[in-house]
Amino acid sequence: MTTSPTLANTREELSALLAPARRDGKRIGFVPTMGALHEGHASLMREAAQHADMVVVSIFVNPMQFAPTEDLDRYPRTLSEDLELCGANGVAVVFAPAVEVMYAGGFSHDSVRDGVTVHPGRLATILDGESRPGHFDGVLTVVAKLFGLVQPDVAVFGQKDYQQLALIRAMVRDLCLPVEIVGAETMREADGLAMSSRNRYLDPAQRTAAAVLNRALHAARERASYGVPSARWAAMNVLKSEPLIELDYLALTSVDLGEAPTSGEGRILVAARLGSTRLIDNMPIHFSTPPERSS
Amino acid sequence: MTTSPTLANTREELSALLAPARRDGKRIGFVPTMGALHEGHASLMREAAQHADMVVVSIFVNPMQFAPTEDLDRYPRTLSEDLELCGANGVAVVFAPAVEVMYAGGFSHDSVRDGVTVHPGRLATILDGESRPGHFDGVLTVVAKLFGLVQPDVAVFGQKDYQQLALIRAMVRDLCLPVEIVGAETMREADGLAMSSRNRYLDPAQRTAAAVLNRALHAARERASYGVPSARWAAMNVLKSEPLIELDYLALTSVDLGEAPTSGEGRILVAARLGSTRLIDNMPIHFSTPPERSS
Repeated sequence: MTTSPTLANTREELSALLAPARRDGKRIGFVPTMGALHEGHASLMREAAQHADMVVVSIFVNPMQFAPTEDLDRYPRTLSEDLELCGANGVAVVFAPAVEVMYAGGFSHDSVRDGVTVHPGRLATILDGESRPGHFDGVLTVVAKLFGLVQPDVAVFGQKDYQQLALIRAMVRDLCLPVEIVGAETMREADGLAMSSRNRYLDPAQRTAAAVLNRALHAARERASYGVPSARWAAMNVLKSEPLIELDYLALTSVDLGEAPTSGEGRILVAARLGSTRLIDNMPIHFSTPPERSS
Repeated sequence: MTTSPTLANTREELSALLAPARRDGKRIGFVPTMGALHEGHASLMREAAQHADMVVVSIFVNPMQFAPTEDLDRYPRTLSEDLELCGANGVAVVFAPAVEVMYAGGFSHDSVRDGVTVHPGRLATILDGESRPGHFDGVLTVVAKLFGLVQPDVAVFGQKDYQQLALIRAMVRDLCLPVEIVGAETMREADGLAMSSRNRYLDPAQRTAAAVLNRALHAARERASYGVPSARWAAMNVLKSEPLIELDYLALTSVDLGEAPTSGEGRILVAARLGSTRLIDNMPIHFSTPPERSS
């Protein structure tokens, strides 16, 4: 189904567009994005349509989740292509607010932190939270705001941002937000690279090298029946083979990002830099206790 | 109108009771309380009825807003009288959850702070927030949770807890919560003492002495046309006359709890202890610039 989505730039426009649907008891599905949309986002939109009568996509590059040193200014903005992709995937409404619409009086880290924000707690202090202090405060605060404005019945997030998904589930649970959260499978390029808006920063050599992240995760999975240390060793070996990669973290954890179990379902996550571009990826992994050696 | 409100103890019961009203597009008014209800709460319920088709009251003594040294354990619990007062004031539903219903797995300050909470920002660092660190984190977090569970169209809070009301308004603004906030006038005893569930802690001598708080605020208002310092001096003089009062703060501020204006509308707030009981009160105050002295 290809239709043109209706664009809302203000809260009032959004509200007016959604009021009739809400009145008619339609289920609203929501996909929050930062734009620069790709096939990964399209799959989230299609997933949302499976759970709802109408799909709303927000496009907002949220300054609160970028540290002053990060790529806020160069983050890609591609609104007209984004609207086309939304239309091709059955989205009814695109909410694309200016910064001043989301942060009354304009954004500064200081003024926002003077006000009321969402505090993400301990889960935001590890992995990406350790590398990007304050990042998840920004993510959860803006998602809470968007939930308040859209009031969706269901919202879809990619598993590619696995820690983000875990934190959004935690927010919904801990603040009793009336929205169902769906985590959707990561979409990948032919060589396994997880789709990301930041992939377009990569030069050709970096782009080729980037596929090593996914290969490292697969290598760990193949060794996971020998236990956590073997799985880690296998992934590290693959990562070390690529000189363009500067590893940020490789983490083997439980499904809820705690300590990896000696056996059973877990998660393996990686973050690395290629030049100034930071990429992340993750996968499920099934650990086993290694068989006892007969020596 | 006196009817028996329906009691909901679980999230599921609450949800089942509110679903038909929501489906029919009825406006839901909400009054969150900690129980030990008095005529002040009754006035909030009547105010809520003015703005809504049905009124929900929650009764929950929220452990997160009490410091370990505070009066959580001795805070009065009077559920059957509370239900009667709700019935006499037209309340349709009373939500009285156990601690485990609001805090899955039970409450501890550490476990809750490990999770996702509402961070109240700078406004929570002054006045009551300075005397009660963490208090407003607890208030805003539980109010956000209750808003998520009840999903009210409008919620009514007393002006007696003026800083709390200001922070709830800030939360609704900063997190875009889809609820209208109404602040209701403080109800007072015959001698001017602001009604409070904690008044029942007072022994007869303390109860008589407590009226000095209100007299001090009035004295300041009468002097406010001579400027902020004169108003403060007048209130302090009254407070000093009562030896049973141990002052926590006397604050003259703008209406949004910033610096007091030299002229125009402001607020005067007081907090004091009588024995181990901490009471607060506040009033609007109109400041003028004092006339120049001819010397």
